[in-house]
Amino acid sequence: MSSFLRVATIEEARATLEKRWRPRPREVEVPLDETTGRVLAEDVVSRIDVPPFDRAAFDGYAVRAADTFGAGEESPIKLTRVGSVRAGEWPKFKIMRRQCAEIDTGAPVPKGANAVVMLEHSTASAKVVRVFRAVAPGENIAERGSEIKRGTKVLKAGKMITPQTLGTIAAIGRKRVKVYSPPKVAVVSSGVELVGAGSPLKRGKIYDVNGPAICRAVELCGGEASYLGIARDEPHSLATLLKRGLAICDVVVLSGGSSAGAGDVAPSVVDGLGNPGVLVHGLALRPGKPTFVAVVRGKPIFGLPGYPVSALMVFDQLVAPYLRRLSGLLPAERARVRVKLTLKILSARGRRELVPVKLVRRGREFYANPLLKGSGAITALSLADGYIDVPLEREIVGEGEIVEVNLFGGVGAA
Amino acid sequence: MSSFLRVATIEEARATLEKRWRPRPREVEVPLDETTGRVLAEDVVSRIDVPPFDRAAFDGYAVRAADTFGAGEESPIKLTRVGSVRAGEWPKFKIMRRQCAEIDTGAPVPKGANAVVMLEHSTASAKVVRVFRAVAPGENIAERGSEIKRGTKVLKAGKMITPQTLGTIAAIGRKRVKVYSPPKVAVVSSGVELVGAGSPLKRGKIYDVNGPAICRAVELCGGEASYLGIARDEPHSLATLLKRGLAICDVVVLSGGSSAGAGDVAPSVVDGLGNPGVLVHGLALRPGKPTFVAVVRGKPIFGLPGYPVSALMVFDQLVAPYLRRLSGLLPAERARVRVKLTLKILSARGRRELVPVKLVRRGREFYANPLLKGSGAITALSLADGYIDVPLEREIVGEGEIVEVNLFGGVGAA
Repeated sequence: MSSFLRVATIEEARATLEKRWRPRPREVEVPLDETTGRVLAEDVVSRIDVPPFDRAAFDGYAVRAADTFGAGEESPIKLTRVGSVRAGEWPKFKIMRRQCAEIDTGAPVPKGANAVVMLEHSTASAKVVRVFRAVAPGENIAERGSEIKRGTKVLKAGKMITPQTLGTIAAIGRKRVKVYSPPKVAVVSSGVELVGAGSPLKRGKIYDVNGPAICRAVELCGGEASYLGIARDEPHSLATLLKRGLAICDVVVLSGGSSAGAGDVAPSVVDGLGNPGVLVHGLALRPGKPTFVAVVRGKPIFGLPGYPVSALMVFDQLVAPYLRRLSGLLPAERARVRVKLTLKILSARGRRELVPVKLVRRGREFYANPLLKGSGAITALSLADGYIDVPLEREIVGEGEIVEVNLFGGVGAA
Repeated sequence: MSSFLRVATIEEARATLEKRWRPRPREVEVPLDETTGRVLAEDVVSRIDVPPFDRAAFDGYAVRAADTFGAGEESPIKLTRVGSVRAGEWPKFKIMRRQCAEIDTGAPVPKGANAVVMLEHSTASAKVVRVFRAVAPGENIAERGSEIKRGTKVLKAGKMITPQTLGTIAAIGRKRVKVYSPPKVAVVSSGVELVGAGSPLKRGKIYDVNGPAICRAVELCGGEASYLGIARDEPHSLATLLKRGLAICDVVVLSGGSSAGAGDVAPSVVDGLGNPGVLVHGLALRPGKPTFVAVVRGKPIFGLPGYPVSALMVFDQLVAPYLRRLSGLLPAERARVRVKLTLKILSARGRRELVPVKLVRRGREFYANPLLKGSGAITALSLADGYIDVPLEREIVGEGEIVEVNLFGGVGAA
């Protein structure tokens, strides 16, 4: 299937891929301090009551509420102080009629007591405490289980691990929790003219841009990227790197090596690696014609264009949603902004087009400035903050029109 | 200085702190694949021209432009094909008058040639190439240095490392780059009643919530958190953990142990650790009264309230801006949303108040639902998405009024 097939829309490409491969998030149980950036993979059920005992909500005196009835500013009621309870202690005594105990915020309410009189509504001298305000049963007490009852589901799978989520998990005493593990993504660049950063630049060569850029884009989708290096647009070197990617990763992303020109070898190499091989070659999307989608050994291989901004835009449309799903992130969790367009865009009718834009500030407002087609590869890359998706049926998007910009940052990045 | 000082506004607390401590971002040079989530700490200057040679922008024929003058659909001009140049190769021949060479996109233009005729404007047979369209000098060539001239500043310090930033750095061949290193933050919880997650819950104890929650909040500001554990609101254990924090970290964050009640020991312990000690104790902010700010051994110690939502809100106001600055992030890079309020808020006049809110969806719009004061500590924590900052002079914020919610996520998190 290495020859160009009928050009497919992104939706068709996805449907074709998903007949052969379903993204299955993988669960892993980790300690709380290894949950950074991850998403909860289980419904978290509490095995304890929170609080686990009746606690004083304020500093004051633990009392039997009935003993305080009738107390007032002018008519304090006298109680006998029989002990004190500090936070973290467990009281060994019981409060009998007309007795009370000094109690700290958060300390357990001793047996017999059923309310707490706040410090400011009392005075004390040695053994005698005067109460100036009556309390009702339960008053100023956080009852056992009032926050979380044992057996309650406190968090649902799919929740991002935020400070609050983590605090809630900590509150019920869990030390480990199931999260979705980051999908492992092999990143390969292809091109005879490419050399890796740090190497001397021989004549005729240029540095690989896509490898590092796509790795970072993978991470922004919650993935773990392994940059396997540069294949020389040549069957043996391509096959070696792709096989390595399939062996150690869940997903393989290749850029370059997939044009229909002289150097087009990637799709045929991929077909040679196993079945079903290349499923889609060529997207009805500008840019994206050289894109291919394959499945080999049950794992997807995505072939992206070599031109850096195109590679990032097609990655964002085609690959990123799967990586986000594998990471357990909701599809909605991606960064978009709605701003006005600075210049009109002319687009070919009947073709969906992704147009890279730079966000520019004019006064207090932000605008999307479309990058001209003539921009160099690196210029466009360093300027583009994201892109606009111009649908099939539009030929012109007018100046000043409000457009939605898909930010390259990915999941809510700045 | 362990007794309560005059209550300070956040701004006064910051000014007082900054007289004794200035947050200095620390630079570190790392390989490109270790720049995830970091900010550039240097102006990046290119040592090479990009592209490093005149490159063909399309597949076609490298020619001397003058030879094509007069070429047309009806009057092709014949050139002699003297060789071919593939991408990544360096041509060893020179194009003389009436000669041309086959050339791939991205391949170096051979000497003598100064333009490229696109494949579709030519036909070829063995040695003869017919050109159907004239080209101007430089046409279809990406000139050496046209994207980046050697010596040009391509990126400024302060830029976040995004896929594009990383791609640009890769394009100029840099393998390592200076970024701001994550500030190291020691997190300590204090409270005799606290036990750590995973430990059995003895009678009278509760699990520590703030430790894990604050660690995650630190990470969202670009910091590296070390959770040192629980001090027992007791001088020796507090001093031990705080000293450890000062020894291994840049910043220490303590929660709990700082109320004015019976268990208040933290500020006096901190004063005993060195000069100048506690600088501010008590903020004119609700919540935040028990907050303290100290400097010991040239490092700041922040004492936060023990109540979890309060701890997170005060962290966000007081600590987060410093951590973001140490991480090299711009102050603006924090997540805020403007939504309508579901319920009116009554606030004490003359007091700034932070009110935790939950974001709720009604139809297509989001609203901020203020959490009632009576909410339990964990309930409030698990519900709060962020908080509203009600200024001194407001007593009522009306239902339906548009408010700005500071999201707990920190730097653009979901």
